[in-house]
Amino acid sequence: MMNKADIAVIGTGPAGVSAAITAVQRGKSVLLFGSAQLSAKISRAEKISNYPGLPDVPGTELAAAFKKHLRSAEINITEDKITNIYDMGGKFALQGASSEMYEAAALIIAVGVVPSKPYPGEKELLGMGVSYCATCDAMLHKGRAVAVIADSPDEENEVKFLAEVCERVWYFPLYKDKPSFAAENIKVLDDIPTQIRQKSLSERTLVTNKGEYDVSCVFILRRAIAADTLLPQLKTDNGHITVNRFMKTNVKGCFACGDITGRPYQYIKAAGEGNIAALSAVEFLDAK
Amino acid sequence: MMNKADIAVIGTGPAGVSAAITAVQRGKSVLLFGSAQLSAKISRAEKISNYPGLPDVPGTELAAAFKKHLRSAEINITEDKITNIYDMGGKFALQGASSEMYEAAALIIAVGVVPSKPYPGEKELLGMGVSYCATCDAMLHKGRAVAVIADSPDEENEVKFLAEVCERVWYFPLYKDKPSFAAENIKVLDDIPTQIRQKSLSERTLVTNKGEYDVSCVFILRRAIAADTLLPQLKTDNGHITVNRFMKTNVKGCFACGDITGRPYQYIKAAGEGNIAALSAVEFLDAK
Repeated sequence: MMNKADIAVIGTGPAGVSAAITAVQRGKSVLLFGSAQLSAKISRAEKISNYPGLPDVPGTELAAAFKKHLRSAEINITEDKITNIYDMGGKFALQGASSEMYEAAALIIAVGVVPSKPYPGEKELLGMGVSYCATCDAMLHKGRAVAVIADSPDEENEVKFLAEVCERVWYFPLYKDKPSFAAENIKVLDDIPTQIRQKSLSERTLVTNKGEYDVSCVFILRRAIAADTLLPQLKTDNGHITVNRFMKTNVKGCFACGDITGRPYQYIKAAGEGNIAALSAVEFLDAK
Repeated sequence: MMNKADIAVIGTGPAGVSAAITAVQRGKSVLLFGSAQLSAKISRAEKISNYPGLPDVPGTELAAAFKKHLRSAEINITEDKITNIYDMGGKFALQGASSEMYEAAALIIAVGVVPSKPYPGEKELLGMGVSYCATCDAMLHKGRAVAVIADSPDEENEVKFLAEVCERVWYFPLYKDKPSFAAENIKVLDDIPTQIRQKSLSERTLVTNKGEYDVSCVFILRRAIAADTLLPQLKTDNGHITVNRFMKTNVKGCFACGDITGRPYQYIKAAGEGNIAALSAVEFLDAK
């Protein structure tokens, strides 16, 4: 597995795909993180009317065209979710949910917008009984009770893994088609979580619309992670990363593109910004 | 002919095409000015590798895809060259080279970058013996000698028209394949123009690398007209229109996108900006 590249691109929506294509075309090595199925936002679109050159294209066809383009440019997708980024001064270290670490000299954040707001208590307790990464933190809660909140069935393997390590898993799937598990220590609930509170040094209380659950850790597994959670020193405004017209953020060597930089939330806008971010990253690397 | 619309889009490169498509999709009427063959910069590209969704697309195919998209969105191209724009406060009046006038409540400038710099004397004498529009100004020089400088064979009809009105036409084609004309009063030269000087109240001297030509008017017919010539109050920087991230210029109701807003000069960047400019124009109109 390649763990090092000139540029790490996080996100496989139109912005990330565009950034990766242009960066590779300019001779840079790229680690592209996201789903091999690309962003769900693309393939779920019924019809996209204003992506010039592809009139009235169904989302599934646009996703297929992007995948074909990535293949023809020999770009692989690394199917790992980046949960933390560390600015090492001159390079970035990226923590994957798989527990793998990656390294890149420049960074392009194209993670899209996070639709949900953090739960009250989430940010305050992050790293102290709230975690975004089951693989990373499961062992810290071995033999204890944990809660898992997830917005997609993709996370069900994480739930199974946690059940192997922990005494009990309360699972709160936020999607349709609630799953069932063979493991008896997984309990699937249809409560809606509303808040996380510190109960004691070793326990958190997950409050829902139906009750309260005392657990060692609340795992929150979202498709997207808020940008300023990924890289806390990033300047953001109302959930969007602040960029200039060259897609530069306030962090040297870090660029952003697509919905995460603000409205309009449009495929072609995101693809255009991905191109700019890639060329700015290339220029940054070449100047070093 | 429709002479009035919500939004006038000037330019049929990727930025103008994208802006027109999104504006129409949002229910606005659009006048799209440019060549029915679209921007020469598109179709002349041998292969474009980084327009996501269309891998390694030859320029001619991208142009064909854009044309198909415009047809499917029922957008017609008005084949007239806009030579002047007047900000009427609340609406814009556009002067076409055909002598037709147009009107729009919002304006999107997507004219691309003008590769050539103005000749010394050109800007100073514009409207006083230097003209960008044969159709508009020919009659002012009836029975006199004029010079025509053109960067494309598209202008040869203008040369013929001038020869019908004027006593003599010195023609300086700046492209390969110099034409020949049936009219005896057209003289085709391969001089390279270098400067325009005021000779007297009624005469200008066109200086070339080979000699000097005293004429009533020097017609300079370029595919693109510099943005701050089109609309003099536009704020520009080194030939680029100054815009913010919403593609707003300093002129209320006027937006810009594509190469004219600055580097990188890339198809997908231009298409993305066209989308943003259109949505900003729609928002501007809806707020009125």
